[in-house]
Amino acid sequence: MTAEQLEALLADVAAGRIAPVAALEKLRHLPFEDLAFARIDHHRELRQGQPEVVFCEGKTPEQVVAICERLEAASGSFLGTRANEGLAARLKSRFPGMVWNQLARTVHLPAAESRKPVSTERILVVSAGTSDLPVAEEAAVVAEAYGHTVERLVDVGVAGLHRLLAAGDQLRRARVVIVVAGMEGALPSVVGGIVAVPVIAVPTSVGYGASFGGLAALLGMLNSCAAGVTVVNIDNGFGAAAAASRICRA
Amino acid sequence: MTAEQLEALLADVAAGRIAPVAALEKLRHLPFEDLAFARIDHHRELRQGQPEVVFCEGKTPEQVVAICERLEAASGSFLGTRANEGLAARLKSRFPGMVWNQLARTVHLPAAESRKPVSTERILVVSAGTSDLPVAEEAAVVAEAYGHTVERLVDVGVAGLHRLLAAGDQLRRARVVIVVAGMEGALPSVVGGIVAVPVIAVPTSVGYGASFGGLAALLGMLNSCAAGVTVVNIDNGFGAAAAASRICRA
Amino acid sequence: MTAEQLEALLADVAAGRIAPVAALEKLRHLPFEDLAFARIDHHRELRQGQPEVVFCEGKTPEQVVAICERLEAASGSFLGTRANEGLAARLKSRFPGMVWNQLARTVHLPAAESRKPVSTERILVVSAGTSDLPVAEEAAVVAEAYGHTVERLVDVGVAGLHRLLAAGDQLRRARVVIVVAGMEGALPSVVGGIVAVPVIAVPTSVGYGASFGGLAALLGMLNSCAAGVTVVNIDNGFGAAAAASRICRA
Amino acid sequence: MTAEQLEALLADVAAGRIAPVAALEKLRHLPFEDLAFARIDHHRELRQGQPEVVFCEGKTPEQVVAICERLEAASGSFLGTRANEGLAARLKSRFPGMVWNQLARTVHLPAAESRKPVSTERILVVSAGTSDLPVAEEAAVVAEAYGHTVERLVDVGVAGLHRLLAAGDQLRRARVVIVVAGMEGALPSVVGGIVAVPVIAVPTSVGYGASFGGLAALLGMLNSCAAGVTVVNIDNGFGAAAAASRICRA
Amino acid sequence: MTAEQLEALLADVAAGRIAPVAALEKLRHLPFEDLAFARIDHHRELRQGQPEVVFCEGKTPEQVVAICERLEAASGSFLGTRANEGLAARLKSRFPGMVWNQLARTVHLPAAESRKPVSTERILVVSAGTSDLPVAEEAAVVAEAYGHTVERLVDVGVAGLHRLLAAGDQLRRARVVIVVAGMEGALPSVVGGIVAVPVIAVPTSVGYGASFGGLAALLGMLNSCAAGVTVVNIDNGFGAAAAASRICRA
Amino acid sequence: MTAEQLEALLADVAAGRIAPVAALEKLRHLPFEDLAFARIDHHRELRQGQPEVVFCEGKTPEQVVAICERLEAASGSFLGTRANEGLAARLKSRFPGMVWNQLARTVHLPAAESRKPVSTERILVVSAGTSDLPVAEEAAVVAEAYGHTVERLVDVGVAGLHRLLAAGDQLRRARVVIVVAGMEGALPSVVGGIVAVPVIAVPTSVGYGASFGGLAALLGMLNSCAAGVTVVNIDNGFGAAAAASRICRA
Amino acid sequence: MTAEQLEALLADVAAGRIAPVAALEKLRHLPFEDLAFARIDHHRELRQGQPEVVFCEGKTPEQVVAICERLEAASGSFLGTRANEGLAARLKSRFPGMVWNQLARTVHLPAAESRKPVSTERILVVSAGTSDLPVAEEAAVVAEAYGHTVERLVDVGVAGLHRLLAAGDQLRRARVVIVVAGMEGALPSVVGGIVAVPVIAVPTSVGYGASFGGLAALLGMLNSCAAGVTVVNIDNGFGAAAAASRICRA
Amino acid sequence: MTAEQLEALLADVAAGRIAPVAALEKLRHLPFEDLAFARIDHHRELRQGQPEVVFCEGKTPEQVVAICERLEAASGSFLGTRANEGLAARLKSRFPGMVWNQLARTVHLPAAESRKPVSTERILVVSAGTSDLPVAEEAAVVAEAYGHTVERLVDVGVAGLHRLLAAGDQLRRARVVIVVAGMEGALPSVVGGIVAVPVIAVPTSVGYGASFGGLAALLGMLNSCAAGVTVVNIDNGFGAAAAASRICRA
Repeated sequence: MTAEQLEALLADVAAGRIAPVAALEKLRHLPFEDLAFARIDHHRELRQGQPEVVFCEGKTPEQVVAICERLEAASGSFLGTRANEGLAARLKSRFPGMVWNQLARTVHLPAAESRKPVSTERILVVSAGTSDLPVAEEAAVVAEAYGHTVERLVDVGVAGLHRLLAAGDQLRRARVVIVVAGMEGALPSVVGGIVAVPVIAVPTSVGYGASFGGLAALLGMLNSCAAGVTVVNIDNGFGAAAAASRICRA
Repeated sequence: MTAEQLEALLADVAAGRIAPVAALEKLRHLPFEDLAFARIDHHRELRQGQPEVVFCEGKTPEQVVAICERLEAASGSFLGTRANEGLAARLKSRFPGMVWNQLARTVHLPAAESRKPVSTERILVVSAGTSDLPVAEEAAVVAEAYGHTVERLVDVGVAGLHRLLAAGDQLRRARVVIVVAGMEGALPSVVGGIVAVPVIAVPTSVGYGASFGGLAALLGMLNSCAAGVTVVNIDNGFGAAAAASRICRA
Repeated sequence: MTAEQLEALLADVAAGRIAPVAALEKLRHLPFEDLAFARIDHHRELRQGQPEVVFCEGKTPEQVVAICERLEAASGSFLGTRANEGLAARLKSRFPGMVWNQLARTVHLPAAESRKPVSTERILVVSAGTSDLPVAEEAAVVAEAYGHTVERLVDVGVAGLHRLLAAGDQLRRARVVIVVAGMEGALPSVVGGIVAVPVIAVPTSVGYGASFGGLAALLGMLNSCAAGVTVVNIDNGFGAAAAASRICRA
Repeated sequence: MTAEQLEALLADVAAGRIAPVAALEKLRHLPFEDLAFARIDHHRELRQGQPEVVFCEGKTPEQVVAICERLEAASGSFLGTRANEGLAARLKSRFPGMVWNQLARTVHLPAAESRKPVSTERILVVSAGTSDLPVAEEAAVVAEAYGHTVERLVDVGVAGLHRLLAAGDQLRRARVVIVVAGMEGALPSVVGGIVAVPVIAVPTSVGYGASFGGLAALLGMLNSCAAGVTVVNIDNGFGAAAAASRICRA
Repeated sequence: MTAEQLEALLADVAAGRIAPVAALEKLRHLPFEDLAFARIDHHRELRQGQPEVVFCEGKTPEQVVAICERLEAASGSFLGTRANEGLAARLKSRFPGMVWNQLARTVHLPAAESRKPVSTERILVVSAGTSDLPVAEEAAVVAEAYGHTVERLVDVGVAGLHRLLAAGDQLRRARVVIVVAGMEGALPSVVGGIVAVPVIAVPTSVGYGASFGGLAALLGMLNSCAAGVTVVNIDNGFGAAAAASRICRA
Repeated sequence: MTAEQLEALLADVAAGRIAPVAALEKLRHLPFEDLAFARIDHHRELRQGQPEVVFCEGKTPEQVVAICERLEAASGSFLGTRANEGLAARLKSRFPGMVWNQLARTVHLPAAESRKPVSTERILVVSAGTSDLPVAEEAAVVAEAYGHTVERLVDVGVAGLHRLLAAGDQLRRARVVIVVAGMEGALPSVVGGIVAVPVIAVPTSVGYGASFGGLAALLGMLNSCAAGVTVVNIDNGFGAAAAASRICRA
Repeated sequence: MTAEQLEALLADVAAGRIAPVAALEKLRHLPFEDLAFARIDHHRELRQGQPEVVFCEGKTPEQVVAICERLEAASGSFLGTRANEGLAARLKSRFPGMVWNQLARTVHLPAAESRKPVSTERILVVSAGTSDLPVAEEAAVVAEAYGHTVERLVDVGVAGLHRLLAAGDQLRRARVVIVVAGMEGALPSVVGGIVAVPVIAVPTSVGYGASFGGLAALLGMLNSCAAGVTVVNIDNGFGAAAAASRICRA
Repeated sequence: MTAEQLEALLADVAAGRIAPVAALEKLRHLPFEDLAFARIDHHRELRQGQPEVVFCEGKTPEQVVAICERLEAASGSFLGTRANEGLAARLKSRFPGMVWNQLARTVHLPAAESRKPVSTERILVVSAGTSDLPVAEEAAVVAEAYGHTVERLVDVGVAGLHRLLAAGDQLRRARVVIVVAGMEGALPSVVGGIVAVPVIAVPTSVGYGASFGGLAALLGMLNSCAAGVTVVNIDNGFGAAAAASRICRA
């Protein structure tokens, strides 16, 4: 129920077209968000063109296809993450316009008509090593699908800092920096000490032994000595892009 | 806003005493629960006489006193858990009618007028060892304060099962059994294999070394081979009583 | 040994048909439960029709078939959980009347004759996301096989609360609510704050990274700020159904 | 070495006042940041008035006083966190203008002359329970010391969501929301599902048993089903404020 | 109910002095162990003189004194572990004959009349470092109180193996070896590779940092490459003594 | 170097057939065990007939075959654990007399000539559930291969204790009891409360979710409230057999 | 930018061939390492002939081949670790001179011309069991590829110490000892107690159950009672070799 | 028994002064190290002047004093770590020449006569923050007591790398670098990427929340992307010094 619908209902009560008790019953059972958070609907309009994002892992291909069909029908577009090759092929045969990014493991059906960027601000995605690229690319692809301008800076691990330091221009241009790293996860601390803009750290499960599936990087980032670094879940490139988008679009 | 207040508002709109737009604004900003969940208020009436419960640990004495004063003003009663001796003395001087249970670490100001029990069903609190008694007693005191009939069965650890087995009458009488145990936390599995009623397991932090502050007991209870045992947090006698009360009062 | 058999034995002693020493030897070696817990046998009669439940994972197909044959011979019925497709096919060829629920991964041979419901009370199974459905469905199927009336409420995660809040009727009707959620496991806290009936929380292993196979959801549920929420093991839909059945059938 | 100093050095070389080899040696040993990251110095000017922040825990009172004296000499101001009463008293006797916030455990010597706010954007600090207040207040005080406008919303835990939902105006006004919660840490998921702006989650060590010193809340927040929630270390109100400041000031 | 009492009951039935139904009721409610495990009572006679052991930690002094009084009344003796100085003083004033072992933290009231050793076999208690002595001594004192002959071998850590190897005679004489070690807990592996008799490993909480309160030693001992080493809980000298006693006395 | 060889060397020195310095050099480089632990060689003779045990997992088939060939050449016998079907087939073709126990995953080449039992004492292997059988059987097969008399008691989980209690005769006959259990691992506590002989607890990885691969059972057993229960590594049936053998053979 | 290039730039400034401001801009954007750490370039020359090392796991074969081609072009050599058979075959067809060590899982293309050893000092690689050999061999192969002389000592676990003690000559000859062990990880403590040279401990994931993928060995080594043992990540043979090389080559 | 004593014994045998059988018995019971590892005694002579190190924590003052007295009697010197003020005062009154380093928590009685340095090589101790100083100073003091030349570099955390980079001279001079850091423990990776000499990383327990007592720093260092960094236990400054000494003195 939108604010308009609510106002109409009250007008019906005021006009005697509907009894107070009946209106009460209707209101009691309505979804809350439609009632009290019409502002959410409103900013959904502002966010228009942003595709819903489907987490494909742990869903059957049938489920994913069904969800994507519903999204395509509603908005002409969809975006999915963690899509393997088989799923991508299946979706491709159903949606010929869909784009599969093998590295990022994303499936994206862009809206038919081009739309203007959400913001002119840049999101910089920095990654520490080659094996961190899938997560970094997921972040980049999602942010682009959200309508942002994205730059990438790859292979700048802390054991060879000069490569990072040489990228001053890119760092200076960014409105927000997403830093993707596995192993000891030290890169966000270094980046956070250099730039003044928000730094979103993404630990990856890259590593072995005492990396414990990304736990070492996660803990490292949570304990960063650079003030104001924030962290998302292990391998959660999507979440970092969503957070960066919240920063840029407001 | 209660259901009655909402109906009155709508009646005002129907009578033209308030404009639809003004009513809309009022509704938009009202606490949601008052609007759509008047049923909650309703069952609050059913639950009448049940004291709110204050978790005293981690609050300053001033905070606890202030909260208790508010509760006493509203309902003539309050119940607090994890209250140490100093806090109890301070509350006692402010509320002479308050009862401090040193073992359970509870502070309770009973309602002035006696009220009839919520239910005739019995809650049985079983504890494994002497050191588990504070948690067991917290469960028992809270359940009694909630208006339930409580029985206690103490010191029936699994290394001497005959004591438990000898208590068949008590086990038979119970509508729900709360089982409190530390160390390996095996008692709920044994109880769950004997009785058909709900079994709520409370791991305690009793133990040392590889008990890891109650983790061993918690994991043991979660992995109980007796079907249908449920578990609450370590040392959470209060939570077990609240769960038992949900079972008995419906 | 049932109570009747025990009485017969004692009568034999009283009649001199058996010597006290011989009776002593017999009693010494008899299974305890048959002796002191005749009441258990009694409520087994009450529970009649409730199938034994076989946990199929970690057993060979041969073992499962053999167990099911024994159960079918004894009661004309069986119920198994965690059954994969291969096992289901094998059981189907042996028991044509068996029903395999692919989503819930259950195999169920219903009793030949229909039986009346154990209780008129409803068990509501609430699940947070699509990926939690297998665990939720396991809970629902087991509860139904136990003879209960089950309702389902799906896809009501905490990031879109209005869907949950819109289901007030279902929540009001339930005698007990099973809440199934992965990731941060926050849904039981919200449900527990809305309903007054027992809430059984089931953490699932849905998630990745720092969900650590369901540990995050498990810990979240154990620390629920809604008083009286109880928890079962990760992915343990069966256990939740068994606990709900203990609540409803007594 | 600032950019100006570097330019002066090069001018000296150009003017023959210093030999290339001598300049080389000087440059080789100079702090890197002064050389290649003059832009950092530049934005330090922009950030002017922002006090350096001293983490007092684990330092001796002598160390803290010495550091504060250096900061006061350089900027006329300082800000410290995790200051207990003894330390506060000691600093107060040395810096009469210092303000100790007992709840937030902060010590702050404001700059002598008032300065205009860094930004007109609002930072909203939301906290779940009474025991989370110290961490929430630390975040608020630090953000204010950084020159931001801060609003507070307290005691809006997920077990009573209507209080949060009633605060729509505050939520709508915020440029960034800091959400502070212990126990199961579910509040950021709910807030993240309601607002479109950045949400920074701060787990607290409030809880007991299986909260494991805030681990449960931390894991819950990292696994939030609300896209784009980011997380800082347990009890790290300061870090959340620093992150919010990075978002607001750019 | 002992086997004798049970036989008497049956004799009463046989003699018509008690009706079968009345006997049935009596039997139904009797402690199980007394009925079916008369053999336990029997071997309790064999074990005669072995004091019950009170774990004093986590009990109030009043509770400990009360338990000890009951034990003293029943057997003329008691043994307690984890007793601090205050408790020891209190017990001493009540039981002048009591012996407090400050290092082992045990309180022991020996039986008035001397009794002959349970076994001629020797229990050897080996400890790795000075800080492991309290746990080792607890094991030794308990084993002695149980009536065994105990030898001690101290300060033979793996970093100086020659001290262990020089103690061949002691190792050869032992019927069972208790090995107490903290830090990396490697000593049981070495001992287990040298002797053929049972080796009981006791990890201690001695260490710091990544010893995690004895976890490192515990895991090390559980993973011992010496076949047949068994392990008890961290710091559980008492448990090791009890296990050794089970081996020696049978 | 055996004791005899050492004595011969010293005799050579005494007879002037070898210079002291040369003898010193020889002694310096000799394996220690041969010198100072001739008693080990001696008890190896006592243990005669006991096959060396090969842990097959993590070794290549070539490595296992080579080791078995060496063992067969030396002793006419070998025993291997954790052998899968492929390895068993390969060994069978090489050693036709070899016996593969599919359930226990053991490969055993018995010595050609029968040998008399090491001891007349019985080792009882108790297991909680069907899924624990492979580990229990590994323990039983290894103990038998070591020359012991083994009894088995299966499917006696704590949720149906009467089955355990009915096995009094077997429990009474045992010199040592090995208890194998997964899930909450409570069975050893119950057994330890019934029998006076040594109890060796073997946690298994049977379970799911919060069993964490056997951790729950392991912690439960380490925290057993039955005094004197000792524990081996998760799934370590072999280790339990080796420990039991140390107890029985001395 | 090398030191020479920097000097040339400054000379250009001195000569007026480039303006100070232009030079400043150039310096601002140059990679840091080239400027201030010319000494690094210098010791790279000293290290000449040391192949870069590619961690193959988690990279696609295409990525590995591309990296190896770049390394071969630059230095005529490459070294890769964690290479499986498929990758090795692919690299072999591209680089016929490449050597695959199946046990160590390394791929190595040696430089065409032989080069003299980096050092005459010996690195001794000691391993505890057969299953630890792959990690030990990785360490040995990498150290050899780095130009060091390597000795190997295998199968000297702590349960049979005489084999280690018999290898006194090898231990005496080593400049540094790498000790590779799984399970309880006790071997480095024993070696560290015998030798005076640096000991680098490598925990392996060899083990099962409570070894938790090498965690037990890791913790054991970190808590070694032998002073001065240092540790690398689980299964990190490469890292140990790199550390040993740092010790030997300086 | 030293090599000389052994040779004497053999000479006695050769001379007929002692029978072979009696010598055998003597040898059998002698400490092993004295026999086969006379070389250890020999290098103990080389190490002469290096004080034994007493870990004072967890020992009673009486024990520490007694050990120090023995050490002083044997060598005229001792060194202790983790000594608090009370212990230091007590030792000071007993050994007036003793030096207490309050920051490092060390007690040191230097040898009366000065001795020449063990090596001309420098050990550089680098620390990240003020709170890491006690551990860093422990490392420095121990290394100096061992006779090494030590340099210190403090407060060079990764969030302000220029301070580290400015210390090129110190880094260049070092034979080995000890890097002490808490929180995310990233500093060793950065140092390891800059220097070619051995890097020993010491995680500290500095931090809070998800630092978990130094676990985050420990894991970070173990997963360092800089090849060849080795790690010691949390807060183990002593161990790092011992390791550095092993590197320098050989």
